[in-house]
Amino acid sequence: MSRGKVLVASVLLAVAGAASAELNQEQAERAVETRQSVLHLMGWNMAPLGAMARDRIDFDAERVATNAGRLLALSRMLSDAFAADTRGNAVDTEALDVIWEQPDEFAAKIQANIDAASALVDVAAAADEGAMREAIGRLGSTCGSCHDDFRADD
Amino acid sequence: MSRGKVLVASVLLAVAGAASAELNQEQAERAVETRQSVLHLMGWNMAPLGAMARDRIDFDAERVATNAGRLLALSRMLSDAFAADTRGNAVDTEALDVIWEQPDEFAAKIQANIDAASALVDVAAAADEGAMREAIGRLGSTCGSCHDDFRADD
Repeated sequence: MSRGKVLVASVLLAVAGAASAELNQEQAERAVETRQSVLHLMGWNMAPLGAMARDRIDFDAERVATNAGRLLALSRMLSDAFAADTRGNAVDTEALDVIWEQPDEFAAKIQANIDAASALVDVAAAADEGAMREAIGRLGSTCGSCHDDFRADD
Repeated sequence: MSRGKVLVASVLLAVAGAASAELNQEQAERAVETRQSVLHLMGWNMAPLGAMARDRIDFDAERVATNAGRLLALSRMLSDAFAADTRGNAVDTEALDVIWEQPDEFAAKIQANIDAASALVDVAAAADEGAMREAIGRLGSTCGSCHDDFRADD
């Protein structure tokens, strides 16, 4: 698909918005790519924080502050990223149907992630290492809690 | 690759950091996925703004403000996302070698993108539609300017 067509498809999808919109194959694959991009970047930014909290690498308060801000920005993209309902499409995804079957429960998991990322941003600004370690753990728990219910097992 | 291994690979890559680090195949593919995720999300957030600026969809100042903030956060991830030098790896990528051959020029393109995103955030906060339209155009130009020099043609 050319970049022009990709952009048009993205715009149409953004405009369509509603979770109940019928997606063609191109739109559905694009939607999967979008949500996987958000989650990939969450993992990319979370992984070193988890390693710091577990003393596997040196604690770096500046890196925590940077990545916490990124994680908060990414957490706030989750709702839009999962708005497109791909249940009716043949796509390669670990996203379970229950995401769109139980939207309130899924929204609550996202909010917990946003809240935990926001809390980490706050304690990172205060440069309190003990509080950062705890906040990293709580943030990681919100990731796992959502994966338990809404992501296919390996 | 299991999620555990992915996380370990991400951490090692994050710790290695230096652009000159030798990457194994797994690390290189992960690095490509990271930078493509950043750029995919930039496109996802930019596409509706470009459509608004061209009057293809209704102007939505609230959406501009939301996406501008996201685009700024993403622009600030570009430098880290491209830190891993994959020139020596067999990866499917549109990233040209010149990214790592001319790091100062590439860094300047990133900074121009950050500055333009920041300017859009500012005018969106002021809710000035005309200024937003101009700032969207200038931000789009910084995307295109970098693609011209540092991304493979279609």
